[in-house]
Amino acid sequence: MHSLSFFQKLVEAEIQKLNFREDPADLYDPIRYMLSLGGKRIRPSLVLMSCELFDGNIEEALPAALGIEVFHNFTLLHDDIMDKAPLRRSKPTVHTKWNNDIAILSGDAMFVKSCQMMMHVNEKVAAGVMSNFLESALRVCEGQQLDMTYQDAASISINQYLEMIEMKTAALLACSLKTGALIAETSAENCDLIYTCGKNLGIAFQLHDDLLDVYGEEERFGKQSGGDIIANKKTFLVLKALELASSSQEKELRQWLTVKNFDEKEKVNAVKNIFMETGVKEKAEAEMENYFQKSAAALNEVKASAEKKQQLISFSEQLMMRQH
Amino acid sequence: MHSLSFFQKLVEAEIQKLNFREDPADLYDPIRYMLSLGGKRIRPSLVLMSCELFDGNIEEALPAALGIEVFHNFTLLHDDIMDKAPLRRSKPTVHTKWNNDIAILSGDAMFVKSCQMMMHVNEKVAAGVMSNFLESALRVCEGQQLDMTYQDAASISINQYLEMIEMKTAALLACSLKTGALIAETSAENCDLIYTCGKNLGIAFQLHDDLLDVYGEEERFGKQSGGDIIANKKTFLVLKALELASSSQEKELRQWLTVKNFDEKEKVNAVKNIFMETGVKEKAEAEMENYFQKSAAALNEVKASAEKKQQLISFSEQLMMRQH
Repeated sequence: MHSLSFFQKLVEAEIQKLNFREDPADLYDPIRYMLSLGGKRIRPSLVLMSCELFDGNIEEALPAALGIEVFHNFTLLHDDIMDKAPLRRSKPTVHTKWNNDIAILSGDAMFVKSCQMMMHVNEKVAAGVMSNFLESALRVCEGQQLDMTYQDAASISINQYLEMIEMKTAALLACSLKTGALIAETSAENCDLIYTCGKNLGIAFQLHDDLLDVYGEEERFGKQSGGDIIANKKTFLVLKALELASSSQEKELRQWLTVKNFDEKEKVNAVKNIFMETGVKEKAEAEMENYFQKSAAALNEVKASAEKKQQLISFSEQLMMRQH
Repeated sequence: MHSLSFFQKLVEAEIQKLNFREDPADLYDPIRYMLSLGGKRIRPSLVLMSCELFDGNIEEALPAALGIEVFHNFTLLHDDIMDKAPLRRSKPTVHTKWNNDIAILSGDAMFVKSCQMMMHVNEKVAAGVMSNFLESALRVCEGQQLDMTYQDAASISINQYLEMIEMKTAALLACSLKTGALIAETSAENCDLIYTCGKNLGIAFQLHDDLLDVYGEEERFGKQSGGDIIANKKTFLVLKALELASSSQEKELRQWLTVKNFDEKEKVNAVKNIFMETGVKEKAEAEMENYFQKSAAALNEVKASAEKKQQLISFSEQLMMRQH
């Protein structure tokens, strides 16, 4: 089984080779730009890794792997418009560099291209691959809509949050692993198990991201962190803190969540202080570990070589940046 | 062969039966709303008609026919955002009734749904149907981008305009006819011919629309017309008038195309007067007839029953509201 960095390099090289038309430039330049911004290429690597896990030919899985990466970048492109995000990976977002109309339309074209790439599989498995992909694509849209709805909601439950990230983030990771399995033509049981593995891994991954936003950067680079806190995002940490807070802590937290004018550093520190008092960092880590174990349990049931399964576990651990 | 109104009623009834999820409401309500606004259901009717022309089973073609209608409505939904259009079929557009973010995202979900419906065909033809659909979907995006680019261009040629409407409008009509042919499993030659038929019909259809905007409503309902003139759209009529105008006529026309404050009725009348002086109505009618004849010529070469082919010609004539 190949290493994560092998898959990432392979995917990156293939992305460089993607040959979009030149005209109309305002349709295809934004697509080239978006794909040139880089990223960890996790989803296509998962496709290839899963294909290899089930003794499939990774060459055959490459177009679909890239298709999922193109789809993922399409969702980022449209999400950036909705979030009015000025930057993506430290570069101007497409709607900032061009404009909203161009961002909408080049996103649409990117989605079409991703579907074309998904159809580039053995005809025997095309219907299954496409159906899995489209079902997951719809989940991602539903998750993004819930995320927007929840941003305006006074309060949501932790279950609602977990359901939302299962759709918005985990569905595509699960889809990636299942795509590789379908292309390798493994059993339906293995396909279901690897999907479950990816779904739980995806939830763990998002919880890790929530934690990283508050605690990650600071520990590792000494940088001011807490973008989610500043933006009042209802992450697991905030929701759990609201649940566990004393009435005075809750009052203070709700004040920070609604105050219009504030000093960013002061707000981040105050909210982090409530996080500490309520012990939600540990709760989030436990929840993440819980989903990580569910993911590993599903993988454990997969019928494949123990050595290859171990590789996928190492990869998941790398994803979580856990040093085991 | 069934009549156009039979197909339209069948499609309308099937659209009523479409069963979208309830939640999230802000994702699926706009889709239901968009599809409830009605329309002539031309594209799905063309799918069914073509399927019947080639002795296919129209029941089998229904999901794909609806898929193309859902896709068409997705493009209208996103186009309305880009055009900042307040109304669609006399009702508020989705981005007006909800907001831009919801319109972007429910459009995306609508596109996913349309792909799912396109895959609802006999597995034997799925790859061909999907490849034809996605290629056409990309043409539609390219055409919409060219339309936006041309709106800001000082001047474009008539050939550029014809190329643009071939992509933006004709590609999907051609795709519709070819989809029916693919589902009926007719010969590759017939598939190509019916595509060519649809492409030329589509261009004729758009030229007819250009004419209708200036001359149609007025003649038939006595209403003030000329929306394209008011919006400075570079239609065939305007481009041909610029080509044929004397230098003083050209100067006047260019003035009307750039003036910021104007009386709508005065502008429409002045521009129509230049159209009359330059004789562009007749030129546009001749061009439309030319494409209509190209369409009929391709249909003539199709190997199918003469009676059924005649039905498709009648349908095309109805589309053009020609009274033959």
